[in-house]
Amino acid sequence: MDPGKIVYVLDLFGVAVFAVSGSLAAGRKRMDVFGVIVLGLVTAVGGGTLRDILLDIGPVFWIKDPAYLLVAVVFSLMTFSYARIHSVHRMGFLISDAFGLAIFTAIGTAMALNTTESYSVAIVMGVMTGTAGGMIRDVLSAEVPLILRKEIYATAAFCGAIAYIIMITMAFPAFTCLLISAIVTLAIRLAAIHWGLSLPVFVVKEISSKPDSGD
Amino acid sequence: MDPGKIVYVLDLFGVAVFAVSGSLAAGRKRMDVFGVIVLGLVTAVGGGTLRDILLDIGPVFWIKDPAYLLVAVVFSLMTFSYARIHSVHRMGFLISDAFGLAIFTAIGTAMALNTTESYSVAIVMGVMTGTAGGMIRDVLSAEVPLILRKEIYATAAFCGAIAYIIMITMAFPAFTCLLISAIVTLAIRLAAIHWGLSLPVFVVKEISSKPDSGD
Amino acid sequence: MDPGKIVYVLDLFGVAVFAVSGSLAAGRKRMDVFGVIVLGLVTAVGGGTLRDILLDIGPVFWIKDPAYLLVAVVFSLMTFSYARIHSVHRMGFLISDAFGLAIFTAIGTAMALNTTESYSVAIVMGVMTGTAGGMIRDVLSAEVPLILRKEIYATAAFCGAIAYIIMITMAFPAFTCLLISAIVTLAIRLAAIHWGLSLPVFVVKEISSKPDSGD
Repeated sequence: MDPGKIVYVLDLFGVAVFAVSGSLAAGRKRMDVFGVIVLGLVTAVGGGTLRDILLDIGPVFWIKDPAYLLVAVVFSLMTFSYARIHSVHRMGFLISDAFGLAIFTAIGTAMALNTTESYSVAIVMGVMTGTAGGMIRDVLSAEVPLILRKEIYATAAFCGAIAYIIMITMAFPAFTCLLISAIVTLAIRLAAIHWGLSLPVFVVKEISSKPDSGD
Repeated sequence: MDPGKIVYVLDLFGVAVFAVSGSLAAGRKRMDVFGVIVLGLVTAVGGGTLRDILLDIGPVFWIKDPAYLLVAVVFSLMTFSYARIHSVHRMGFLISDAFGLAIFTAIGTAMALNTTESYSVAIVMGVMTGTAGGMIRDVLSAEVPLILRKEIYATAAFCGAIAYIIMITMAFPAFTCLLISAIVTLAIRLAAIHWGLSLPVFVVKEISSKPDSGD
Repeated sequence: MDPGKIVYVLDLFGVAVFAVSGSLAAGRKRMDVFGVIVLGLVTAVGGGTLRDILLDIGPVFWIKDPAYLLVAVVFSLMTFSYARIHSVHRMGFLISDAFGLAIFTAIGTAMALNTTESYSVAIVMGVMTGTAGGMIRDVLSAEVPLILRKEIYATAAFCGAIAYIIMITMAFPAFTCLLISAIVTLAIRLAAIHWGLSLPVFVVKEISSKPDSGD
C-alpha cells in the first residue's frame, strides 16, 4: 500500500469518526433520520471543506470524490441504528471526536504546506481543519462547543500540528509525520478526557462601570 | 418567457421569501431596522453563497447581480413595515421558510449537476443550499435551528432533491424537474407543518461512566 | 509613508483590536490559553476571510501574509496575560470591537469596489466584512451576537460603508475615504455605546393559531 493510499484511507477514517460524533450529537437532540444524516455529514466534511475553501482548492474534496459522502452517510446511519437499540456512553462521543480532531489536524497541516511555506500558517490551518467540523456540529446542535470547555482541546490540536512541523523540518517522510502528528494530538486529547486535565484558565475579572442593559 | 428566465425569477422569489423569514426571525429578537436588513440578507443569500463557494463559482451570485440584494432588502423592509403594524402568525415564518427551502434545494441540486456527475453529491449540495440560509438565520438569532426540530425538515429537502434526480434521469426538461422538485419539497414540508408530522426520532440513551464535569 | 502602506497598517490594527475583543470574550467563558488564541484568531481574521472568499480572492490574506496571524496571536496573548492580573471593564470589549467593526467595514467596502461596480454590493460586502468576525466570536462563545442587541451596531457599519461610497463618488483619494468611513462607523458606534442610543426596534406581535410544539 503506497503512502498516498494510506493518507486517503486515513482521511476517510477521519470522516467516518466525525460522522459518528455528529450523529451522536444529533441523538441528544431527538432528531429524525435525515436530521441525523445532515448533522453527521456536516460534522464529517466541515473541517476539510473549510480547509479547501481557505486554500482555494475548489471544488471541495467531497464534490470531486463522492466516496466521502458515502462513508459519512453510512456511518451516520450505522450510529443511528446502533444507538436506537443500545445505550451509548458519553465517552463514545468524546473519543470519536478526538480521533477526528487528530486526523484532520495532521492532514490540514500537511495540505497547507503544499500552498504556503509559512509554518505558522500551516499550524493555524491544521488546527482550524481539525476543530471546524466539531465547532459546526456543536453550534448547530446548540451545545457549548467542546473547544470552549476547560478540558484541553485546541491545545491538543496545536501540539499535533507543531509535531508535524518539527518532524517535517527533520526530513522525516510526510506519511510518518502525519501519523506521529495524529498520535500526538490523540494522546494529549485522550489523556485530557481520561484524567480531566486542564490548563490554567483565563478568567476576566469584569468591572461594569455602568449597568450593561444588553445582557 | 424562456426557461432560463423562469429559473431566474424562481431564484429571486426564493431570495424574497427567505428574506421575509429572516426579517420575521429578527422581529422576535427586537432588532432595529438595520439589524433586520442584515438578518434578512444573510438568510436570503446564505444558501446560494455556500453553494457558489463549494462549487467554486466565484465571485458569488449576488456580487455579479445586485438585483438579488435589492430584492432581499426590499422584502426585509416590507416585512419590517408590515409587522410593525399588523400581527403576524408564526405560520407566516414557517411558510416563507418552506418556500425558500423548496426553491433553493431544487436550484442547488440542478446547479451541482453542472459541476459533478455524481447524484449523491448533487443531492447533498441541494439539501445544503436549501437549508444553509435558514441554519445561519437560526444560529444568528439564537434559536434552535428548524432542522433540529422533530418536524420533517431535512427530510423534505432530501425528497425534493431525489425527485429532481429521478426526473432528470428520465430525461424531463430541466425546468420541469426544477418545478416538480420544488413542489415535492414544499408539499412534504407544508404537510409536516400542518399535521405536525414527524419521523421516528433518534434518542441516545446515554450512560455516564463518570461525572461529566463539562456539561 | 505611502497610502498602500497605511492601509496595510490599518488592516493589521483591525486584526489586533478584534483579537483583543475575541480574547476578552474567551475570558468570560473560562478558556485556557490555546482556546483564547483560537477565539482571538477566528475573530481577528473571520471578516477578512469571508471577504476574500466571497470576492474569490484566494488563498485568503492570512495564508499569503503570516504577519496577520502573528499580530492576532501576540495581541491575544497580551490580552490573556493582562486580564489574568488586572480587572477589565466590559467597555474594553465593546470599544475594541467598535474599532475592528469600523476598520474592516471601510476596508471591505473599498476592496469590493475592485471587483464590482455596484455600490449596493460594495456596501453589503463592507457591512459583512465588518460584522462577520464579531458574529463568529459571539456564536462560538455562545453569547447573543452584538448585532442582535438593540444598540446601534449594523447601523453604524451601514453608515460607514455609505460614507465611503459617497466620498469615492466625489473623487476623494481612496485613503481619505477609508479613513473618513472608519471614523463615521466608529463615531456612531461609540456614541451608541456611550449614550445607550438605539433605533426603534421591530417587534413581531405573534399570534399562534395552534400550539407551537417545537418551541
